[in-house]
Amino acid sequence: MEIGITGVGHTQFGKSEKDVGDLMLEATMGALSDANTKIGDVDAIYVANFSSGFESQCHLPAVLSAKLGVDKEITRVESACAAGGVALKQAAIALESGLYKNVLVVGVEKMTGSAVDDATKIIAAAASKQEMLHGATFPSLYALMARAHFAKYGSNEEHLAKIAVKNHKNALSNPLAQFRKEVTVEDVLNSKVVASPIKLLDCSPITDGAAAVLVSIGGGSSGVNLVGIGHDVDSINIYERKNIASMPAVSKAAEKAFKMAGINVGDVNVTELHDCFTIAELIEMEELGFCKAGEGKNLIDEGRTEIKGDTPINPSGGLKAKGHPIGATGVSQVVEIVRQLRGECGERQVKDAQVGLCCNVGGSGATAVVSIFSR
Amino acid sequence: MEIGITGVGHTQFGKSEKDVGDLMLEATMGALSDANTKIGDVDAIYVANFSSGFESQCHLPAVLSAKLGVDKEITRVESACAAGGVALKQAAIALESGLYKNVLVVGVEKMTGSAVDDATKIIAAAASKQEMLHGATFPSLYALMARAHFAKYGSNEEHLAKIAVKNHKNALSNPLAQFRKEVTVEDVLNSKVVASPIKLLDCSPITDGAAAVLVSIGGGSSGVNLVGIGHDVDSINIYERKNIASMPAVSKAAEKAFKMAGINVGDVNVTELHDCFTIAELIEMEELGFCKAGEGKNLIDEGRTEIKGDTPINPSGGLKAKGHPIGATGVSQVVEIVRQLRGECGERQVKDAQVGLCCNVGGSGATAVVSIFSR
Repeated sequence: MEIGITGVGHTQFGKSEKDVGDLMLEATMGALSDANTKIGDVDAIYVANFSSGFESQCHLPAVLSAKLGVDKEITRVESACAAGGVALKQAAIALESGLYKNVLVVGVEKMTGSAVDDATKIIAAAASKQEMLHGATFPSLYALMARAHFAKYGSNEEHLAKIAVKNHKNALSNPLAQFRKEVTVEDVLNSKVVASPIKLLDCSPITDGAAAVLVSIGGGSSGVNLVGIGHDVDSINIYERKNIASMPAVSKAAEKAFKMAGINVGDVNVTELHDCFTIAELIEMEELGFCKAGEGKNLIDEGRTEIKGDTPINPSGGLKAKGHPIGATGVSQVVEIVRQLRGECGERQVKDAQVGLCCNVGGSGATAVVSIFSR
Repeated sequence: MEIGITGVGHTQFGKSEKDVGDLMLEATMGALSDANTKIGDVDAIYVANFSSGFESQCHLPAVLSAKLGVDKEITRVESACAAGGVALKQAAIALESGLYKNVLVVGVEKMTGSAVDDATKIIAAAASKQEMLHGATFPSLYALMARAHFAKYGSNEEHLAKIAVKNHKNALSNPLAQFRKEVTVEDVLNSKVVASPIKLLDCSPITDGAAAVLVSIGGGSSGVNLVGIGHDVDSINIYERKNIASMPAVSKAAEKAFKMAGINVGDVNVTELHDCFTIAELIEMEELGFCKAGEGKNLIDEGRTEIKGDTPINPSGGLKAKGHPIGATGVSQVVEIVRQLRGECGERQVKDAQVGLCCNVGGSGATAVVSIFSR
């Protein structure tokens, strides 16, 4: 079955005056306008949202219904930072069932209303309670992965810094990005240590934002189709992972997505992946198969993941610089890939992009959704 | 397509020593054992859970993966107290897509770990923030509905008390119920006022528990099929409702479910509905079409909603007496209906039940899922 992306919408990422309902509304209206359609033609909606903790508001389906002024089949899904990817997958299943023709996916998070300490606690709920009780935090879990990667493969802090530098540079030409400010390798290396070797400029920020995608049976005006999607969830405990410098859920999700799409990694022209911390981008590059495990550092050193390289990654600026409103992130990745495939990205456009990939990860890598788009 | 219920599992409801992961595991193993199958044969899992607030644990798909020791396509869904119903609907869509053969639905909530004040705040996140900011609480919103119902239809506190009395009586023969203690109309009327006319014994309790249902293409050994399911979500603000003594989402969801099942309300032999407060049972009876709006009080007075009546409602004891672990509730309703249709319910068995209905409601009625089962 052909699944077309008929419309995309995206709010400014950063600190917003809007609440979670108005953010959802703005992204939704953007997608409907882009699709040149109306809410009445939407059969079902999936809302991706990580936590009610930030705004003390669960039950977002009913919040969105109030904002839209319509009653609908609206469902919230959550799988930590992979909520957006999981919502897209539910939309694809819903279309595949033949019960729906047009399904909207809206991802949202309003994070800046909470104090930073509270936000840190709320985000920690996505990780293993057992690991947290032993003193781990999200940065420290990713720091363990980074140390393991360094030890096993000879990567280093400079490789991570180069990821941050690239993503900040890419965000300069993304008007919706939270940070539009270049940083240097020295800036990253000299930024405050959060959990060694992870420094402040290796981390994605706290962000408000929403993104929406309308998916429809039979394709649509945009000419971009969802051609493959894979999802995998493994243990929330990273101590159970055989190789801490890996994310097996990512390679499993990718395998499913490539199989469904009938293509392989060499066919991908542009990728948005989940750089919640810079080390995540490096590990995911390897898990997705852009190179063998341990060789990601070479792609970085050779500039191949730059917009003008042969394996462009995160032209949007990624989570690092575009921002990371948790529930919105997986949907925002899709919006960027669709705009790249449509050739609408101006200075950050990847030339002649025909096939794009999104990799959305939850927690410390336990959940992964990989989706592939083609025009 | 035929969708069979191949297995059900259900923990004790009440205060549990187990955490959210172990509760999910127990219900899952129960359903797998009942289905005489293994986790390896399950293609996808939907987890229904309301809030990470109680245990500071989101990302339950990865928690369940750790408990089961397998990687899977696991997705959490939430729509306030209707999470369980919504999860069942996602499972039905997944089967309908033809991509999956066996899908597990697990509902869970671990609520007693929080102080009661905290629990009240966490639950309030399911309601309209706008209404809450003006001083409303969940009991007070339902109290408004009750007052409106009294004024419009001549129902009264005694009708509500009779609902509590019936549900407590039914729970006496449900070994998994939280409260196995009879109450009288006087007990209810004399219990502490929470938000007039809602009294303590009109309210469902805070509960730990989990329930699981395995649904499969082509039916199964249990002989019970899911024959219809409907879902509707309207505005989170009850002030926008034309008639506050109504829940339009329930009647819309019911209409869809009956249409899909090709039957009407007169064919239903046994019903589990969402009595988070006693007034909810009264309004839902009317919205489901068991009687006209305003006539529910007659069914109550005539004893027709008792197990031996012609319209038995909540033989399990309902949310009121069986308990209301929020994310588990919608799945628990299904477990009871399946056991009723299999004739396994002993003293609380509804005689010759062939068709059963579940009505799961979220928030103050904005989300509703109605499902219909037949043997």
